[in-house]
Amino acid sequence: MAFLGYTHEQLPKWVKKVEQFPVVLYILKWVLIGTLVGGLTGIGSALFLWGLHWATEWRGGHQWIIFALPAGGFLIGACYHYLGQSVVKGNNQLLDEITKPNRIIPLKMAPLVTVATIATHLFGGSAGREGTAVQMGGAIADQFTKIFKLDKYDRKILIITGIAAGFSSVFGTPLAGAIFGLEVYIIGRMRYEAIFPSFFTAIVANYATHHVGHYFGISHTEYLIPTEVIPEMTLENLLLCVLAGVAFGLTGMLFSKANHFWGNLFKSKISYPPLRPVIGGLVLAIFIVILNFNHGFDYANYDLKYFGLGVPVIVDSFTTQMDWYDFLMKTLTTSFTLGAGFKGGEVTPLFYIGSTLGSFLSTHISLPVALLAGMGFVGVFSGATNTPMACTMMGIELFGAPSAVFIAVACITAYMFSGHTSIYNSQIVGSPKH
Amino acid sequence: MAFLGYTHEQLPKWVKKVEQFPVVLYILKWVLIGTLVGGLTGIGSALFLWGLHWATEWRGGHQWIIFALPAGGFLIGACYHYLGQSVVKGNNQLLDEITKPNRIIPLKMAPLVTVATIATHLFGGSAGREGTAVQMGGAIADQFTKIFKLDKYDRKILIITGIAAGFSSVFGTPLAGAIFGLEVYIIGRMRYEAIFPSFFTAIVANYATHHVGHYFGISHTEYLIPTEVIPEMTLENLLLCVLAGVAFGLTGMLFSKANHFWGNLFKSKISYPPLRPVIGGLVLAIFIVILNFNHGFDYANYDLKYFGLGVPVIVDSFTTQMDWYDFLMKTLTTSFTLGAGFKGGEVTPLFYIGSTLGSFLSTHISLPVALLAGMGFVGVFSGATNTPMACTMMGIELFGAPSAVFIAVACITAYMFSGHTSIYNSQIVGSPKH
Repeated sequence: MAFLGYTHEQLPKWVKKVEQFPVVLYILKWVLIGTLVGGLTGIGSALFLWGLHWATEWRGGHQWIIFALPAGGFLIGACYHYLGQSVVKGNNQLLDEITKPNRIIPLKMAPLVTVATIATHLFGGSAGREGTAVQMGGAIADQFTKIFKLDKYDRKILIITGIAAGFSSVFGTPLAGAIFGLEVYIIGRMRYEAIFPSFFTAIVANYATHHVGHYFGISHTEYLIPTEVIPEMTLENLLLCVLAGVAFGLTGMLFSKANHFWGNLFKSKISYPPLRPVIGGLVLAIFIVILNFNHGFDYANYDLKYFGLGVPVIVDSFTTQMDWYDFLMKTLTTSFTLGAGFKGGEVTPLFYIGSTLGSFLSTHISLPVALLAGMGFVGVFSGATNTPMACTMMGIELFGAPSAVFIAVACITAYMFSGHTSIYNSQIVGSPKH
Repeated sequence: MAFLGYTHEQLPKWVKKVEQFPVVLYILKWVLIGTLVGGLTGIGSALFLWGLHWATEWRGGHQWIIFALPAGGFLIGACYHYLGQSVVKGNNQLLDEITKPNRIIPLKMAPLVTVATIATHLFGGSAGREGTAVQMGGAIADQFTKIFKLDKYDRKILIITGIAAGFSSVFGTPLAGAIFGLEVYIIGRMRYEAIFPSFFTAIVANYATHHVGHYFGISHTEYLIPTEVIPEMTLENLLLCVLAGVAFGLTGMLFSKANHFWGNLFKSKISYPPLRPVIGGLVLAIFIVILNFNHGFDYANYDLKYFGLGVPVIVDSFTTQMDWYDFLMKTLTTSFTLGAGFKGGEVTPLFYIGSTLGSFLSTHISLPVALLAGMGFVGVFSGATNTPMACTMMGIELFGAPSAVFIAVACITAYMFSGHTSIYNSQIVGSPKH
């Protein structure tokens, strides 16, 4: 199967004569690879979303399980310590392999992170899902490096397609996924070497998830910014958007810093890795009990709004104004959960943090609550990951084109104000922000 | 007014201590500059659109004016030869000043190109308007280099904001305009140094045009891809989109090559520049008479569908299937008109070429005619200018989010297949396409 591993130099002269002939080969090659990577990742995402749905539902009916958080933590920690040393760096490992190729990502990254994420959610940790899908996509994609004997240059494109496929399919936003893949490994630039493979694969993956998910009764959540509430983009509203964007950017930075803080603290204080999520789980369980002080040990009535994925709260924040502390609480629970070694992504919590913050800001900034929630939803994510174009596109795919200008200004301003930190340590700085 | 001309080094130490403080200054600076550049360019665009509207209407009622094409050509040619030697390179001059800064763009670029474009349309030449608006924006923007004593780095950002403002306001697509400014000067990359200024200015400009245009009864044309005709993005439809994208890309390249061909031919055969549009105008007038052979010299009934902006034909192509030669005829008339030295942009003709081609393809590619017309509308433009992200965003802003995936695949595939040629000679290649 070395037929896909050709380099441009190896092509016959007559093929190179017309500029489009090598492009035809390039397109056929990536249509084939993209269909495989996108199809497999999309099916994987559907199964993952189904597992996540099951875990969240089950926890809802069996809230006693939060007391088992330390045990769940040990399972996850031990799994990674004894089976997953080579894949523990997760998303950063993928970004490193794009910028500093070293060795093929082991396929076991995919099942390990999927199971560990579902476990994290089952036991009530606060985490997301994009990291999981992205790692699944990246690990699946990289297996084709060997199969098709691809060179370094193609392998970089391949990993980007995996990231794009994972992101696209887990959120149902193919264009944002594709742009995320192109944008995430380098701050301040977008390079187009992988533009066709990335978009093609992301679209295939989204289609696969959509269809397989259909069988399992899984669909993506819909968020609504009603067109009729969206005001005109006057100069005044534009400045209000910038102001909100500043808040989103600083919050994105806060989240990144909190993530690194807890991660470093656990690493420096507890040298045996499997013990970290045990202690972390214990603290989380105690914290949940304290938060539900008025319910005593009547765990069935515990309010777990700051734990798990938190999708219902996100949906509510588009219609109801949230409290000023909601976004801070979610920042705390998520950064602590992930810092302790539980698994999952950061993006859905970032949506939560952003939409509750935006929703709260509607008291101080005279824009509609749904619009501010939507702007925050993608804005904080843009600040924490330095991917303003992917976030703008995500806003458009989720909320529609009418709010696009508001979304874009929020995402770009947040990007400007989040500094050169990021939830991904392995992002390299391509261009300074100012 | 040198207060905006500071460099990062000149800032006091305490400002540089917190990463966000210099960003606040940066944002304030570009909010101020962006409001000025965007406001002025937006007002200019509104007046330009009004002039264009008047010229098109007037020609409709006085079709004899096409016989005066050689005279109109002489006026334009002489104007540029005697008054506009320093601004005759147009769009390429702006791109050159971004990548190889040399000297401030004379303000007269703005009125010269505006008047010359309106004259071109009045006499019945086939041309567009984006070049005009972009040159107006760029020339206005660059005047602030002196006023605010900006350095080279800021000047580059400034010109980008001017381009973004012009594009945004003339088409009513602020996000596409902003991305176009970031994307157009270098093939295969998007750099974010100017991301905030570009978006801010583009949005202000669009707002200004919208409001000033309102007074003159000018509004942007609306194109419709009905949501209910848009099919699901299955693997089969995805491959059909790629196929259509190939056609759009090759057509974009054909347009670029035809443009350069006529331009070079006129330059090599006629050494006195004002004579070129005279001869060109004569040929165009004869061509129009031949095309309307059946009407003899009954010019009031002449069909001028391949001349002027051609917006009505674009609108029709979304509902009616066009002939296979429509896009070729428009390619010929536009490349000839511009090559002869008439003025105007290339983008509206590219919309025409793309949407008529897409519309025609609906016989061979089983996708709805409106969708194919929309895909072609931005797809050929993407191929001819190598700006796939701006074109995708433009499709979303004009046709809405539901068709976004189809639009994106068409634009990106067209970009892949148009080679490394471009209607802008001054674009530099940042990354090869494959």
